[in-house]
Amino acid sequence: MSLDEAATKPHEELAATLADGMEAVNLLIRERMASENAPRIPEVTAHLVEAGGKRLRPMLVLAAARMCGYPGPYDVHLAATVEFIHTATLLHDDVVDESRQRRGRPTANLLWDNKSSVLVGDYLFARAFQLMVEPGSLRVLSILSNAAATIAEGEVLQLSAAQDLRTGEDTYLRIVRGKTAALFSAATEAGGVIAGAPEAQVQALFDYGDALGIAFQIVDDLLDYQGDASATGKNVGDDFRERKLTLPVIKAVAQADEAERAFWQRTIEKGRQDEGDLEHAISLLHKHDALDATRQDALDWAARARAAMDTLPDSELRRMLSDLADYVVARIN
Amino acid sequence: MSLDEAATKPHEELAATLADGMEAVNLLIRERMASENAPRIPEVTAHLVEAGGKRLRPMLVLAAARMCGYPGPYDVHLAATVEFIHTATLLHDDVVDESRQRRGRPTANLLWDNKSSVLVGDYLFARAFQLMVEPGSLRVLSILSNAAATIAEGEVLQLSAAQDLRTGEDTYLRIVRGKTAALFSAATEAGGVIAGAPEAQVQALFDYGDALGIAFQIVDDLLDYQGDASATGKNVGDDFRERKLTLPVIKAVAQADEAERAFWQRTIEKGRQDEGDLEHAISLLHKHDALDATRQDALDWAARARAAMDTLPDSELRRMLSDLADYVVARIN
Repeated sequence: MSLDEAATKPHEELAATLADGMEAVNLLIRERMASENAPRIPEVTAHLVEAGGKRLRPMLVLAAARMCGYPGPYDVHLAATVEFIHTATLLHDDVVDESRQRRGRPTANLLWDNKSSVLVGDYLFARAFQLMVEPGSLRVLSILSNAAATIAEGEVLQLSAAQDLRTGEDTYLRIVRGKTAALFSAATEAGGVIAGAPEAQVQALFDYGDALGIAFQIVDDLLDYQGDASATGKNVGDDFRERKLTLPVIKAVAQADEAERAFWQRTIEKGRQDEGDLEHAISLLHKHDALDATRQDALDWAARARAAMDTLPDSELRRMLSDLADYVVARIN
Repeated sequence: MSLDEAATKPHEELAATLADGMEAVNLLIRERMASENAPRIPEVTAHLVEAGGKRLRPMLVLAAARMCGYPGPYDVHLAATVEFIHTATLLHDDVVDESRQRRGRPTANLLWDNKSSVLVGDYLFARAFQLMVEPGSLRVLSILSNAAATIAEGEVLQLSAAQDLRTGEDTYLRIVRGKTAALFSAATEAGGVIAGAPEAQVQALFDYGDALGIAFQIVDDLLDYQGDASATGKNVGDDFRERKLTLPVIKAVAQADEAERAFWQRTIEKGRQDEGDLEHAISLLHKHDALDATRQDALDWAARARAAMDTLPDSELRRMLSDLADYVVARIN
């Protein structure tokens, strides 16, 4: 999930526009990740929180709240909340995936151990829930606790669906909502709710975050098969080697003949991969136009995100969020 | 943490008195641990939730709420909440401790894998937060999210303090509050708050749960050095072999001469243990009256729990909770 490349960078424009709010968010994050009793906690957390992530999710909260006229201060708490939830899931994901690198640095589970990653992740979840209670909005609490459940459910679903060729596009979408879109849509929806925006605007903000998150993840999955490693920071074929059933493969499997199905069963379901298999997999994706169809899906979701924004009153922030939807798919267009 | 033995069993009396409420709690637990999207979740959860735990924490919520005159229904939600938080921490603890058995059955991390335990634990945390939002009480949310943070903080603290002989009784107490007492006191306090009990009663309920939980854990740590395995289900010396700095050892280290300090450093800090070391450790605990002093601490905490109950209006439930405090220390008295 990298947004590093391309010429226009709407997330940088957002960061500049929201600079004062984001400074308050970063202060609050640093304050709340501290634990005088357990110094291991801020060590592990700082490693990840200070690692130069783009803070996209907290920016979505602030942008949504402000474009609906919210003067503060609780958008800052909700922004820190979503960043804590995000960081907690990264810590746990890296344990689950046995990852060794994230954002170009060794993962916490490698630097410390799995135990620290599990428990510090739990601490950040708990801190997130403390933070989200402070604004005193039961509706926001409901949105964010539902998002947390969707995230965890999506992760478990990914675990059991990953090596099952029967996984269809509906399951993929459910997994993607859990992995990415649920926190995006909770961020934008909570921003609208805390601002007291009219129901139609809150719905549009949710739809925008949902579609943006789905587009974001589909692009990520597509680049895994056709990206330029120097530009994306991803190695082509990682998902194939890790036997992940992502959208391009799901589309190719749906059209596979008997021999192709046997190939996918061997390489993905059973995980027996030989030299040349990745190349053959990519040739099958091309044969069935699976990469083009996946690209089209990403573009469709980005268009839905923009369409949701179009229903909101015009503003500079609205334009930036629309641009962000374009930017997310610019890497594949 | 087993309460299986002895003649009078106040937790059974509580279970009988609260039978209708506990039936509703069990129904709600089963309903909310379901996930039609990810069938792995109810599988893993059922393994633990249905394993015949005593549901002590949910009973504390119901007892506290009802003795303060609460007619329901939200004590049931809060009771299910604390059981979900408890179950989530058990799943994560077993990963962190690499445990193979719990309650006489293989652990989930052994039956499935660490990944499932981490992610299903996260799911249960999220479900707990969804449940606790439903009563609509911000104060209850604050109590329970603070407890979740204290639990995670205590676990991390235990991780870094475990092999540090400088760990004192104050740190031990902080760890024990995290491991056990924070959820006990949150259960009783939340029960009082949802019932709208006067402030002094809410405080007494908190004090009771806090002291009961501390007594409970100290007894557990004491039995590890002098229990009867057939009665307690624990093997003598597990904590020693796992190099845990529990209260008996902390008390003995505080009085150790140079040779004894070297012994503790070798066996606990560095983990180099030989045959006969456990016996020598136990002899040192006896030499410094560490076991008796630990027993006295447990009795003192149980007395504090009873004293807190004495400030509440008299009732059958109050008597049972007082008896429970006696019962917890009956195993060592």
